[in-house]
Amino acid sequence: MAKLKWGMVGGGEGSQIGPAHRLGSQADGLFQFTAGALDHRAEVGREYAIRLGLDKDRAYGSWQEMLAGEKCRDDRIDLVTIATPNSTHFEITKAFLEAGINVLCEKPMTMTVDEGEQIVRVVNSTGKICAVNYCYSAYPMVRQARAMVRAGEIGKVRLVVSNFSHGHHGDAMDADNPRVRWRYDPAMAGISGQFADCGIHALHMASFLSNDQVETLSADFVSTIPSRKLEDDAMVNFRMEGGAVGRLWTSSVAIGRQHGFDIQVFGETGGLRWASEQPNQLVFTPVSGRTQIIEKGENGLHADATRLSRVSIAHPEGFPLAVANIYCDLADSIKGKTRDGLPDASDGVRSIAAIYAAVASAKENGAWIDARPPIFVK
Amino acid sequence: MAKLKWGMVGGGEGSQIGPAHRLGSQADGLFQFTAGALDHRAEVGREYAIRLGLDKDRAYGSWQEMLAGEKCRDDRIDLVTIATPNSTHFEITKAFLEAGINVLCEKPMTMTVDEGEQIVRVVNSTGKICAVNYCYSAYPMVRQARAMVRAGEIGKVRLVVSNFSHGHHGDAMDADNPRVRWRYDPAMAGISGQFADCGIHALHMASFLSNDQVETLSADFVSTIPSRKLEDDAMVNFRMEGGAVGRLWTSSVAIGRQHGFDIQVFGETGGLRWASEQPNQLVFTPVSGRTQIIEKGENGLHADATRLSRVSIAHPEGFPLAVANIYCDLADSIKGKTRDGLPDASDGVRSIAAIYAAVASAKENGAWIDARPPIFVK
Amino acid sequence: MAKLKWGMVGGGEGSQIGPAHRLGSQADGLFQFTAGALDHRAEVGREYAIRLGLDKDRAYGSWQEMLAGEKCRDDRIDLVTIATPNSTHFEITKAFLEAGINVLCEKPMTMTVDEGEQIVRVVNSTGKICAVNYCYSAYPMVRQARAMVRAGEIGKVRLVVSNFSHGHHGDAMDADNPRVRWRYDPAMAGISGQFADCGIHALHMASFLSNDQVETLSADFVSTIPSRKLEDDAMVNFRMEGGAVGRLWTSSVAIGRQHGFDIQVFGETGGLRWASEQPNQLVFTPVSGRTQIIEKGENGLHADATRLSRVSIAHPEGFPLAVANIYCDLADSIKGKTRDGLPDASDGVRSIAAIYAAVASAKENGAWIDARPPIFVK
Amino acid sequence: MAKLKWGMVGGGEGSQIGPAHRLGSQADGLFQFTAGALDHRAEVGREYAIRLGLDKDRAYGSWQEMLAGEKCRDDRIDLVTIATPNSTHFEITKAFLEAGINVLCEKPMTMTVDEGEQIVRVVNSTGKICAVNYCYSAYPMVRQARAMVRAGEIGKVRLVVSNFSHGHHGDAMDADNPRVRWRYDPAMAGISGQFADCGIHALHMASFLSNDQVETLSADFVSTIPSRKLEDDAMVNFRMEGGAVGRLWTSSVAIGRQHGFDIQVFGETGGLRWASEQPNQLVFTPVSGRTQIIEKGENGLHADATRLSRVSIAHPEGFPLAVANIYCDLADSIKGKTRDGLPDASDGVRSIAAIYAAVASAKENGAWIDARPPIFVK
Repeated sequence: MAKLKWGMVGGGEGSQIGPAHRLGSQADGLFQFTAGALDHRAEVGREYAIRLGLDKDRAYGSWQEMLAGEKCRDDRIDLVTIATPNSTHFEITKAFLEAGINVLCEKPMTMTVDEGEQIVRVVNSTGKICAVNYCYSAYPMVRQARAMVRAGEIGKVRLVVSNFSHGHHGDAMDADNPRVRWRYDPAMAGISGQFADCGIHALHMASFLSNDQVETLSADFVSTIPSRKLEDDAMVNFRMEGGAVGRLWTSSVAIGRQHGFDIQVFGETGGLRWASEQPNQLVFTPVSGRTQIIEKGENGLHADATRLSRVSIAHPEGFPLAVANIYCDLADSIKGKTRDGLPDASDGVRSIAAIYAAVASAKENGAWIDARPPIFVK
Repeated sequence: MAKLKWGMVGGGEGSQIGPAHRLGSQADGLFQFTAGALDHRAEVGREYAIRLGLDKDRAYGSWQEMLAGEKCRDDRIDLVTIATPNSTHFEITKAFLEAGINVLCEKPMTMTVDEGEQIVRVVNSTGKICAVNYCYSAYPMVRQARAMVRAGEIGKVRLVVSNFSHGHHGDAMDADNPRVRWRYDPAMAGISGQFADCGIHALHMASFLSNDQVETLSADFVSTIPSRKLEDDAMVNFRMEGGAVGRLWTSSVAIGRQHGFDIQVFGETGGLRWASEQPNQLVFTPVSGRTQIIEKGENGLHADATRLSRVSIAHPEGFPLAVANIYCDLADSIKGKTRDGLPDASDGVRSIAAIYAAVASAKENGAWIDARPPIFVK
Repeated sequence: MAKLKWGMVGGGEGSQIGPAHRLGSQADGLFQFTAGALDHRAEVGREYAIRLGLDKDRAYGSWQEMLAGEKCRDDRIDLVTIATPNSTHFEITKAFLEAGINVLCEKPMTMTVDEGEQIVRVVNSTGKICAVNYCYSAYPMVRQARAMVRAGEIGKVRLVVSNFSHGHHGDAMDADNPRVRWRYDPAMAGISGQFADCGIHALHMASFLSNDQVETLSADFVSTIPSRKLEDDAMVNFRMEGGAVGRLWTSSVAIGRQHGFDIQVFGETGGLRWASEQPNQLVFTPVSGRTQIIEKGENGLHADATRLSRVSIAHPEGFPLAVANIYCDLADSIKGKTRDGLPDASDGVRSIAAIYAAVASAKENGAWIDARPPIFVK
Repeated sequence: MAKLKWGMVGGGEGSQIGPAHRLGSQADGLFQFTAGALDHRAEVGREYAIRLGLDKDRAYGSWQEMLAGEKCRDDRIDLVTIATPNSTHFEITKAFLEAGINVLCEKPMTMTVDEGEQIVRVVNSTGKICAVNYCYSAYPMVRQARAMVRAGEIGKVRLVVSNFSHGHHGDAMDADNPRVRWRYDPAMAGISGQFADCGIHALHMASFLSNDQVETLSADFVSTIPSRKLEDDAMVNFRMEGGAVGRLWTSSVAIGRQHGFDIQVFGETGGLRWASEQPNQLVFTPVSGRTQIIEKGENGLHADATRLSRVSIAHPEGFPLAVANIYCDLADSIKGKTRDGLPDASDGVRSIAAIYAAVASAKENGAWIDARPPIFVK
């Protein structure tokens, strides 16, 4: 039961994402934090890494240095987490994969569809794992929902309604706050604001739960705060390859919603509802039957739901342990036991393609557009 | 405090709507049930009306007979409720109005925009009241929400999200049940299924709460059960004249949703949420503040909310008393105290226009279309 | 389908209870409001009754006058509702029953156990109906719960937990407000404050749902606001004749609870939960199974639940229609179709006995005391 | 930022509590798992400890061996967690404290009040930390509630209602299951069943939130499943030293309640409610004001609530991280920054005294009994 060796690029002192990944990777004792290039300021990063307990020679000043250092070690890291600014994800991810090191990349995996397809090809050629941190998919009751759909417990999926709305950017007085403003500025955030930031989680979840892929979409983007160049509210209708219909609303000006990420899947013989603010319950209604509350930890759940839960029924498990579940699946996958729930490079590139499609659709008044990366169009 | 005299066309024995209107009109002792043509089978209708306590000479065999009989009485009815099949609403409503009798019409007020505009003109020329039974608007906490928006308590409205979804037509096995099937058959239901049936309540509510009118819309209609010619699920994006953005989802195949009519209004300084399954609470969040629960019956509510509530705080009042509230407003309006919350012919024709616009948009892949009746386009 | 004739004693202008009974009795068109002595000020009462539409000769100046007037008419009232100050209930109820007129009495039916037993004897000897307005028992989903327990759907009842707590008397600044103060003053309220006011509903409900009777109890009463002579918070443990255990908490200083009347019944094979603030749902959990939401109006409910609901599934029905349901049961019972759900004089006297027992127990530091009226002790 | 060194006694392979403590101690990188005596079977324990990554010489075969081994090391452990069978807690805790090693003990700290008082004396004389794992008290929003009470935000506390009820032992068919049976067998569980198991958490929480101590109590214990010798349902009324009234219900036969641990604190100017199944929200109602939802992570929380939360607003944090928060407070306390929220030996002995008092009271039909350990009676 030797621990796997884990490293991180980015996630320096004061970031929120660094502690989340350290907690996630260490909660279950599966990974040993071994190497890091935690800050773009070399000395700052090294010093912090040492304070966190890394050996001096694995407290690196840059990701390039880290890659060079790890590549040639016998005891090199098994997994690196990439938690740097978005525009650097592609380059770093590609480099580590090519060096034979498995990657967990923060979303977005890349900035363009072409880059995303390159990552898919590198994964295919190297056989290495490239996971993307769509960590909501790792909640036990999300896995239960997915397994129920796969097992036919709600019949063929007809309709998916997936929302991710909050109101934390709803204060126009606060719109110039740099912590908020960059998200709606194309120079910093890219081509999409709220849809790329939150909506994409909802879109991934729609695919994840319905075990299907988005084929075409039509988008309506608005900036309800006029000074914003990128959308702070979006509605996306979509169709899946298997024929299901999708509705996705995402907003950052929905004052009063705190973390309104919830999804409903409606099939021919039943419906499911899951909400991220009460992640330990799944609501199931068989057609013409009564609504039932399925609890994390109850007897008879599907294997994935049971496996990814740590404490008994009705003891809540929250977001940080959903991140930890990504690491559980990674540990298993690295050891050769493939976990098909783990979001991977194909999910990553599909997301980028959907963002491009939504932006294009919104510009053309909601025209229906193919949302698939060319690599996956048969 | 003499009671007003009330009559009904339609709502015969075994209907659900007849008892609802009788309860609504009599709950507060404001109206005396005086005349009726309750069934298209003359004898059946007369006999039932007599059993309900009407005098023989005002238990009519048809609406024409009733109109003729009432028109020339000194003690003629003050108000007639039209609860007949949809395609007859226009003719009957118009006739009673022209005879100088106030009308409460079930939705849809008419089948075409042109008919709707005719009703508006008759109302304008006769000075009579033509109310349309958008009764959800008469819940106390809906009135509270509207008054808060008017008073600027959430600032300028940016976004309205209004859903009305249920799953009661989600069973394909039951799709041929005549009680269900007609709703999706253009020969019986007209040009729209679920949007015209339920969605239109959500659209009216969006206007009602935001104190604004829909200007343009874009619709996505689907029949998730393939045998259906009309939509059982629809998404409509819209823009209001005052600039607010709207999102409206309606479905009858959302298995597990029972009566999922809920609306959120997001303004510059706050958000509101109301749900028809818990109608006695209104959820309010000031920007950057804590979510508050506003209770029907609490001190300091706006006048309309207090006026239309009968029992003290946290004693629930339900749907039948929302209908009764429509009658309260009608009684006041008939007596000359205009109640601006009462949905009227202009609401009726706007709804029809929106249905036509949504159907046209859906046929054109979601093209944006003007949703206003010509009469209201300046 | 001639209407029954109904009269009221008390419930004058400005009272909350008068309109509630008028709405309840007239909502379903079963009763005609025919006679009344609405105010202890004779002229005021007469004038108000006439304004409400009563004939002059049946707009009485006192209950004695009304009794005398109605007794000798052929068309006398079928039912009288007693909504006068508590201390007068006994005398008026007894007099009308003895005159052969059915009674619906507000709670408490009497001030002493002996008086209560007298009423039971009068009922037995006259064959007339004496109902007591424990109207919460007439919610459709309460009836569903009772029927489920009777049908053995949760097995033998082990435990009942019944609470009725609110915080509306929690403001010490407001304690001298006459509208509040009298409730805690023995000179006006009698021997018990909050337990007699609200707790007794919870105790009745415990018996009603478990189909069993309280045998012994132990009470802890406190006045959390020291100026109060009577309790504003009470805990009562009890045992039922069939062996079930009971827990009852009632409070008027539970700031934040609005109308916290909710009850849980736990049996050998399942549990039920109902809450008066969401009265249209009943929560059922079979032992070792999933929690289910039972909706008012769903298919397959027990007959009483279906009969006492007016609008379809998930259209809420509230408190005023629970009162109306009492009138529905009364109409049926008067016509000879006994409705065993109707709370009657035996319920009335049991409540009084329980209040006396609780007061005595509280004085003796929670000693266990027989809570039954002697007339029901075998 | 060197990690503290941590050891565990008990928590062997297959236990639930072992992983919970390892996760809790390692989630935030504050402790290094350094030594363990994980199983009463020496070889099994050693082998498991080595598999978990301990050095051979600190993988001990018994707690005595571990104590002897650690005591004389320079780099001895800073903290030991005791997760052995209840009856051994006293002896092991005392021994480690006397050796100068800080302890986190699972509840109950001891089996008798006298033993508990001995631990308090050892703590006083050694200056070492003895924490008891009342981990619910470490949820951020519980700390927020406590801080609000301390800051006077609800005024003087009048009433505390604390429940911990579930239904997982409600199946009589399952009562002989050894996993369940021992809990109700005095030979194995001691003098109390459900009250000592769950109720004691609710009692601790009542003290914790009200910043006060239980003085006297009156208990009603029942075994609703007759084969049980110890109670499976209990009601305890209590009075606090500061005058507040308490109500505590605990049950293991409340079928349908999953983890019904919730607490309400009512003061002179407001009320608070917290529920363990939705631990990230705190419900606050100011007297005569609206109910507000306080969210973990919102701006302006009290320092303890902010400090003990890891992810931003509305990202749920669950039970395992409440355990981790105990370790956070322990790490700070060991380093000399006392954390007064940390439950300690005085809490431990107060709990034992309350259990003895409740058992005695229940035997005497609910007599009121002093619930304080003699050491704390002035």
